Amino acid sequence: MSSAWLLPEHIADVLPAEARRIEELRRQWLDLARSYGFELVMPPMLEHLDSLLSGTGRDLDLKTFKLVDQLSGRTLGLRADATPQVARIDAHLLNRQGVTRLCYCGPVLHTRPSGLRATREPLQLGAEIYGHAGLEADLEVQELALDGLHAAGVRDLTIDLGDARVVRSVLAGLPLGPAELEALVTALSVKDQPTLRALSAGCPAEAREALAILPDLYGGEEVLAQAAERLPKRSQISTALGDLAWLAGHVRQAFPDVRLGFDLADMNGYAYYSGIRFAVYGRGSTDALARGGRYDEVGAVFGRNRPAVGFSLDLKGLAEVSRAARTEGAIRAPWGEAEGLRAAVRSLRRQGETVVCALPGHEHEAQEFECDRELIEVDGRWVLRAL
Amino acid sequence: MSSAWLLPEHIADVLPAEARRIEELRRQWLDLARSYGFELVMPPMLEHLDSLLSGTGRDLDLKTFKLVDQLSGRTLGLRADATPQVARIDAHLLNRQGVTRLCYCGPVLHTRPSGLRATREPLQLGAEIYGHAGLEADLEVQELALDGLHAAGVRDLTIDLGDARVVRSVLAGLPLGPAELEALVTALSVKDQPTLRALSAGCPAEAREALAILPDLYGGEEVLAQAAERLPKRSQISTALGDLAWLAGHVRQAFPDVRLGFDLADMNGYAYYSGIRFAVYGRGSTDALARGGRYDEVGAVFGRNRPAVGFSLDLKGLAEVSRAARTEGAIRAPWGEAEGLRAAVRSLRRQGETVVCALPGHEHEAQEFECDRELIEVDGRWVLRAL
Repeated sequence: MSSAWLLPEHIADVLPAEARRIEELRRQWLDLARSYGFELVMPPMLEHLDSLLSGTGRDLDLKTFKLVDQLSGRTLGLRADATPQVARIDAHLLNRQGVTRLCYCGPVLHTRPSGLRATREPLQLGAEIYGHAGLEADLEVQELALDGLHAAGVRDLTIDLGDARVVRSVLAGLPLGPAELEALVTALSVKDQPTLRALSAGCPAEAREALAILPDLYGGEEVLAQAAERLPKRSQISTALGDLAWLAGHVRQAFPDVRLGFDLADMNGYAYYSGIRFAVYGRGSTDALARGGRYDEVGAVFGRNRPAVGFSLDLKGLAEVSRAARTEGAIRAPWGEAEGLRAAVRSLRRQGETVVCALPGHEHEAQEFECDRELIEVDGRWVLRAL
Repeated sequence: MSSAWLLPEHIADVLPAEARRIEELRRQWLDLARSYGFELVMPPMLEHLDSLLSGTGRDLDLKTFKLVDQLSGRTLGLRADATPQVARIDAHLLNRQGVTRLCYCGPVLHTRPSGLRATREPLQLGAEIYGHAGLEADLEVQELALDGLHAAGVRDLTIDLGDARVVRSVLAGLPLGPAELEALVTALSVKDQPTLRALSAGCPAEAREALAILPDLYGGEEVLAQAAERLPKRSQISTALGDLAWLAGHVRQAFPDVRLGFDLADMNGYAYYSGIRFAVYGRGSTDALARGGRYDEVGAVFGRNRPAVGFSLDLKGLAEVSRAARTEGAIRAPWGEAEGLRAAVRSLRRQGETVVCALPGHEHEAQEFECDRELIEVDGRWVLRAL
């Protein structure tokens, strides 16, 4: 038996039923984003590595496949995340002065899966607002994310809010190297108190206390008051807490059915975020279905440091938990050269019907499409009959 | 000035207006294919190289980016053509006995551009029928290709027909090595008589004569009669000529406005085709907009040699020549927290309208969307006013 067809680990074909569901979700999201005024862009799969990884952190670097360009001899990267690409498009190509809303949808590739069951080829869809530093932009992308997940039929939505400025403020100025800081951020995200204590042993008392408190700051809205009371009194932290309260109020008003949660320690998967960040969870999935936030610094390397806020999600993952599409009935037709038959088939297809012609010799095969009607000739006319 | 944003040669971002046109074409094609009963599949971007390049020829090998899988140490290829992947899906994954119709749409990547202005990242869309060796399947994919190009607004369509069996039959058994045969095929495609004479000098007289005649066998339908008279009397050739005549008759009947052409020498870009092949041209493009044909042997390496016929095209190339989409008007709305305003915005978006909220401080910016109406408050109610 040939093994030529075995695919690499964490890489899979998407077969018809699932592909159709993904395509439906894709259209639904892009139409929804358009209804908010987001314009579609298509950044390329391949870019120069230095452009692709500018200001995005080590995690993305490790996830990125590299190869050499025969035309230039330079190293190229296969995008592992389209977000920095879209920031580049805003910064350089469009170069608009005002607010720009962009969305995109396409495959990204990862050298390593992000989990035991994760695909290495997510179909990333996202939306970004550039040029507005105010919370109204944060609110708009959260509304879009929640609207889209709701439309996709995901139940029991929970939005989890945090703000990168809280952890950043606590870590600022600590006598630690980059590797230790990274380990600290990871320990915070998984709420690993012993590691936090060990790593922060040489830090000032205020920072040690804050690091001990942060892992407890998750839960409902009471978290904001606890944080205000227990964390160091710094302006960056109090601004962040105030912004979170404002956003939470507006999200609650627009989506009374969505549960709100807070996690002030989690920075996992938000390498380039600089302000409010969020994750949305739903029934049937342990991992977040969508993640987003503010990343005002990503465009700087492209010569234009614009405020930026957005989110992204994997449509393949979403398709697994969103409610299945209804199956539409199709029409079975015979194959034949009669002009009347061919005209009837053409006309039905133009009306949006699926008409499957049974090719000669295959009249009695089962069809993958569920044919609920057939095209038959009655008294010289082609008519539909229920099956 | 930073050059971080410079993209590799023959790689480009697709900006909003073009991206929207491409997205429209994508939906139009996938809906049309569905109306014929083609099911969507999504093969991955990355595969083991041996699987990706099985039975597809040297041209595709040279076009394929290679990289090493960290998880397995094996060499992976980035797909340069999705057609063999879809054959693999039919042969292995679906493993159906009867006719299977599959379509797909996604990026492919090329190490080298296929022309001076060609992209190295086409957005390939295609459709394939497996399991039917008869001409009815060839006709169906040609009809789908012509229907789709017509719907895309391409004018002056010409379908160019040929058959790989003609050249294959002439070349069969000649005392030439693989490199010489390849050079012969290229010389035939570009109708380079001196090279043909030089390469075939040591061949039998019948083959030399046929190779001298083949480059002249292009033009209108008279070509078929000339070929029948002047080419060697072999059953493979006469079958091919009969099949071409049958198809031409049916295409003419279904598409009276489409010009028919024949080129019996051209094998360029059809490495894996084994029977009838076709290319469709239109106004505004020098290269073919779609290419397809029969490639019954591609699935063999996956353990299942099924009849196969299909076509593919590049949506980015098509978008350049298809007629521009009409621009839809959008609605400009203020940003505000009033529930009446927010409800009006939500309701308009649900009706399919694009509503762009001017974020605070950005009220007087030009919008990329052409706003032809605005949402204003009159006597406590939110209403639309023409701009």
